[in-house]
Amino acid sequence: MDSHQRQFDRELADLKKQLIHMAAIAETMIERAIRELVDRDEQQARDIPDWEQDVNRMQIEIDEQVLALIATHQPVAGDLRFLLAATKINSELERIGDLAVNITENTPTIIHQPELKPLIDIPRMAELAGRMVRDSLHAFVKGDVLMAQAVIATDDRVDGLKNQIMRELLTYMLADPKAIERALALILIARHLERIADHATNVAEDVIYVVQGRDVRHPMTSRSGDEPQAP
Amino acid sequence: MDSHQRQFDRELADLKKQLIHMAAIAETMIERAIRELVDRDEQQARDIPDWEQDVNRMQIEIDEQVLALIATHQPVAGDLRFLLAATKINSELERIGDLAVNITENTPTIIHQPELKPLIDIPRMAELAGRMVRDSLHAFVKGDVLMAQAVIATDDRVDGLKNQIMRELLTYMLADPKAIERALALILIARHLERIADHATNVAEDVIYVVQGRDVRHPMTSRSGDEPQAP
Repeated sequence: MDSHQRQFDRELADLKKQLIHMAAIAETMIERAIRELVDRDEQQARDIPDWEQDVNRMQIEIDEQVLALIATHQPVAGDLRFLLAATKINSELERIGDLAVNITENTPTIIHQPELKPLIDIPRMAELAGRMVRDSLHAFVKGDVLMAQAVIATDDRVDGLKNQIMRELLTYMLADPKAIERALALILIARHLERIADHATNVAEDVIYVVQGRDVRHPMTSRSGDEPQAP
Repeated sequence: MDSHQRQFDRELADLKKQLIHMAAIAETMIERAIRELVDRDEQQARDIPDWEQDVNRMQIEIDEQVLALIATHQPVAGDLRFLLAATKINSELERIGDLAVNITENTPTIIHQPELKPLIDIPRMAELAGRMVRDSLHAFVKGDVLMAQAVIATDDRVDGLKNQIMRELLTYMLADPKAIERALALILIARHLERIADHATNVAEDVIYVVQGRDVRHPMTSRSGDEPQAP
């Protein structure tokens, strides 16, 4: 292995470390946003704006690193696929951070009013979504297809919980107009969590694409066939 | 200009054409999804599942083209930045298509029940969002920073409309429990449109990044300063 290759490998290892770090911040943001909601304690979400800034800065830095790596080392095939996926995954993590912020924006409506109901399914959803974020990034840096598939499978559980939450909160709204505002805020929070899980699923699909060189993002899509029709 | 460069320019022009085509399909999907809702006519959305497949297939093809272009021509600086942005923009367009599908999923609840209210702001929001999609892609292929800035400015109008819609529908829900389900479906549709506008805004921010080589995605983020803190 020449020194050029060693240098590339070092920079790639550094990039992976940064992505894992960024994912850890995003996961903590989700966890604290939900703890604020469940504990009805605004202190829990205190650091979220700072972490959002960190995630935003890391997104820019990682994109620049990828550009520099491609320009300097001109990688091909697998390494190039990995680097392009890294910039996409980078964007997914940044949006996950934004969604944690969105959760905190819907929270005051709920915690400044009497408790509507004990929250069970939303924290469960948040835990699954947070784990999906962590696992999808570990799957990416390790090239672990099985872990990526497990993330994709978990997304169905998250969607199931979201539907259950929507149905339950709709009955609260129908039963009592005074519950509407809080129930609506909870529905929006459930949807933010669902979107976080969707972003983690996107990451997991990219992992499989990178490792296997084939696309699982749209299993229903025929890759041969006619040209797309102009609408 | 050597023949290698000419070949690269031809392939780049082809890539741009495909992105514009993909954006046109996505814009039509939005327009038809909203027409189904406003006209209460399911025929309007008939072709949306096919178009979604087209968009999905184009996403994969464009990613492969970008990979091949980088591997074959090893572009640097501006061209490389453009190609990396193209794969991100590609993903934005695919999600815009998904969101148009999401709109059609919330529509039956509304059009299979009596009309709640004449829809004014939602079609206006959809028109703005659709135009943002079109303009952001044109800004990208032309490297037009002014057009990109106009797209970003329009996002504030879309957010304003969304907030107005939310407030209005909340009053409908509070006034009449029978309105809750339909009002909730309309709120979700407004949020899908808001997210479409957000994706177009992401594209516009990428345009400025590519053209000016600087990042406007997080204007509040200092690029110097301390390392991100571990949470």
